[in-house]
Amino acid sequence: MKYEITAQEGLAKSAHMETVHGSIETPVFMNVGTVGAIKGAVSTADLKEVGCQVELSNTYHLHVRTGDRLIREFGGLHRFMNWDRPILTDSGGFQVFSLTTLRKIREEGVSFRSHIDGHAIFMGPEESMKIQSNLGSTIAMAFDECPPALADRKYIEASVARTERWLVRCKAEVARLNALPDTLNQEQLLFGINQGGVLNDVRVKNAERISELDLPGYAVGGLAVGESHEQMYDVLDHVVPALPRNKPTYLMGVGTPLNILEAVARGVDFFDCVYPSRNGRHGHVYTKFGKKNLFNKQYELDARPIEEGCGCPACRDYSRAYIRHLLKSGEMLGMRLCTLHNLYFYNKMMENIRNAIREGRFAEFRRSMTDSYTGGEQ
Amino acid sequence: MKYEITAQEGLAKSAHMETVHGSIETPVFMNVGTVGAIKGAVSTADLKEVGCQVELSNTYHLHVRTGDRLIREFGGLHRFMNWDRPILTDSGGFQVFSLTTLRKIREEGVSFRSHIDGHAIFMGPEESMKIQSNLGSTIAMAFDECPPALADRKYIEASVARTERWLVRCKAEVARLNALPDTLNQEQLLFGINQGGVLNDVRVKNAERISELDLPGYAVGGLAVGESHEQMYDVLDHVVPALPRNKPTYLMGVGTPLNILEAVARGVDFFDCVYPSRNGRHGHVYTKFGKKNLFNKQYELDARPIEEGCGCPACRDYSRAYIRHLLKSGEMLGMRLCTLHNLYFYNKMMENIRNAIREGRFAEFRRSMTDSYTGGEQ
Repeated sequence: MKYEITAQEGLAKSAHMETVHGSIETPVFMNVGTVGAIKGAVSTADLKEVGCQVELSNTYHLHVRTGDRLIREFGGLHRFMNWDRPILTDSGGFQVFSLTTLRKIREEGVSFRSHIDGHAIFMGPEESMKIQSNLGSTIAMAFDECPPALADRKYIEASVARTERWLVRCKAEVARLNALPDTLNQEQLLFGINQGGVLNDVRVKNAERISELDLPGYAVGGLAVGESHEQMYDVLDHVVPALPRNKPTYLMGVGTPLNILEAVARGVDFFDCVYPSRNGRHGHVYTKFGKKNLFNKQYELDARPIEEGCGCPACRDYSRAYIRHLLKSGEMLGMRLCTLHNLYFYNKMMENIRNAIREGRFAEFRRSMTDSYTGGEQ
Repeated sequence: MKYEITAQEGLAKSAHMETVHGSIETPVFMNVGTVGAIKGAVSTADLKEVGCQVELSNTYHLHVRTGDRLIREFGGLHRFMNWDRPILTDSGGFQVFSLTTLRKIREEGVSFRSHIDGHAIFMGPEESMKIQSNLGSTIAMAFDECPPALADRKYIEASVARTERWLVRCKAEVARLNALPDTLNQEQLLFGINQGGVLNDVRVKNAERISELDLPGYAVGGLAVGESHEQMYDVLDHVVPALPRNKPTYLMGVGTPLNILEAVARGVDFFDCVYPSRNGRHGHVYTKFGKKNLFNKQYELDARPIEEGCGCPACRDYSRAYIRHLLKSGEMLGMRLCTLHNLYFYNKMMENIRNAIREGRFAEFRRSMTDSYTGGEQ
């Protein structure tokens, strides 16, 4: 793995990364395909068309449905979903702590019941790494606990300490699995995850300790779970400088276009979020002038594309009026077109951010994009 | 409009038709997009990729949702849905008689309530023609009653007589609308519809009478509504020879691949059916060896495409195992891929039928396709 910062302006960085599944230009937005498919009838052929560099799949979902063992027999997730570019898999931790019932956390790992059929599952660091190794993803995420947003300091400190111990086990297990002769991707990369709620001192100490493990990349987890944007930016102001700058810096599950812009300004260069696809399925579409709700009557006879000048498959061929008609009629095509537009919008925005950093005009770009985006609907 | 038979073998015919929206090679399968979109997240760009020549939209559905007046203001259905090839619109009659409540049929037309919001609507021949003129379709269908399959002779004879009187009014109204200076498509073609249940004598007399109106094309309606395949073929044996052979002959709402093959052998050259899209949404896919249910466990690790050698977007890129996984996970993409495959299968089958007729080997093609298709799953 090679990660090279190619341009910076203030704390913002743009990097070129090379992986066994191809290169990544950062800042990058990873497109979320929970079960190995982007919701909204988006195929991997579509992903290439909307400019996706990295696909993100959910370990927990693939483990409980179809199963990582079957996907491994099939030759791994890349072959299964027909995607030859990088894939990041999360660890399953977030879903274990948000979707399942009857959870019991011990030092060894977590016992819980599947949200689909209720069967008992145990997942700890080794299990999560084994599943991600079966999937053969490019980047595996460490198994962590994302403590409840309102947990007290005592709980968060204990949780972070355990997540640190789990990270050491994750690192050892990935090294062991990568060394096995029949492992699908022997160059799988492990990213560690920083936690600590909104307690900056806990976050920074944790960041310093996990940095010592010299992992290929680091994520900031447990944000965008209910705290304010200002709290999130404040955490980033403290924690990003405590993580290695010469490695990928990933802000998990974030966020709105302006969240991403602000995080880039603070040194983050990997992102993922369900907003573009989830909002697309509800007819909410992104433009440089903010979000539009295509269900609104004002678009009934609007012959313009969602965003004028946009090169996405929806804007190339269809009008706001037609897409509104599809959405009102409950036609899947309406959801698909809005999702394609939104993913294209996010991926294009990242390209614009990269170009701005590379051309030394990111500060200006940040101002003008913020002004335009908050200017309201046109 | 030009319609020229370019090849025939027995009763089977292949024709070249020219319309104001481009040419049609027959036999042709029209792809059904109820509200101006094929269900299963299929766009008009996709329709071109799966080889669709003619799109079929439903007058009733477009009238009650979004509305033909708005679509007219938008420049017509072609512009609204971004489709530059021929469109056939049905008359709304079938939906009026199958979807709505509190129907009252009089000589003037039908009063009923919308299946969406229950509001009162009146539709007769003039109203249906006006709506189809607003949509600007290439081919408009006559407003008819499709009598209940189990209706007695007396009801059917009265219904057919009224539908004949309605057809005279449809013809006059289309002529009037086409002559108006602001009509979107002044060359809109009207197809008459033959009815009569399974009473061959009623059907044949009706066919002879409507043939005298010298319309651009004729359809056989009211079949595939519960009668056996043998009854349907028997009706076709009687009625198709009573319709003008040198005009398009359209069997409405039919059907399975073998139904189409048998109807072609009896002189039919236009078809439409929801089977490929509806079955696709349920994971049932067509192959030359019959239909497969992709939910079956046998496909769990099957790395082959739905049909080997198929050039559709699903078979080019994805395996049975992956599509099965998508279907089991409830991902829209699974439905979309199966629908794309099925539409491609139907359109390709029609191309194979045309080539067989043109090369004088349709009888052989009919035998070998029937043997292969009824041979069961491979």
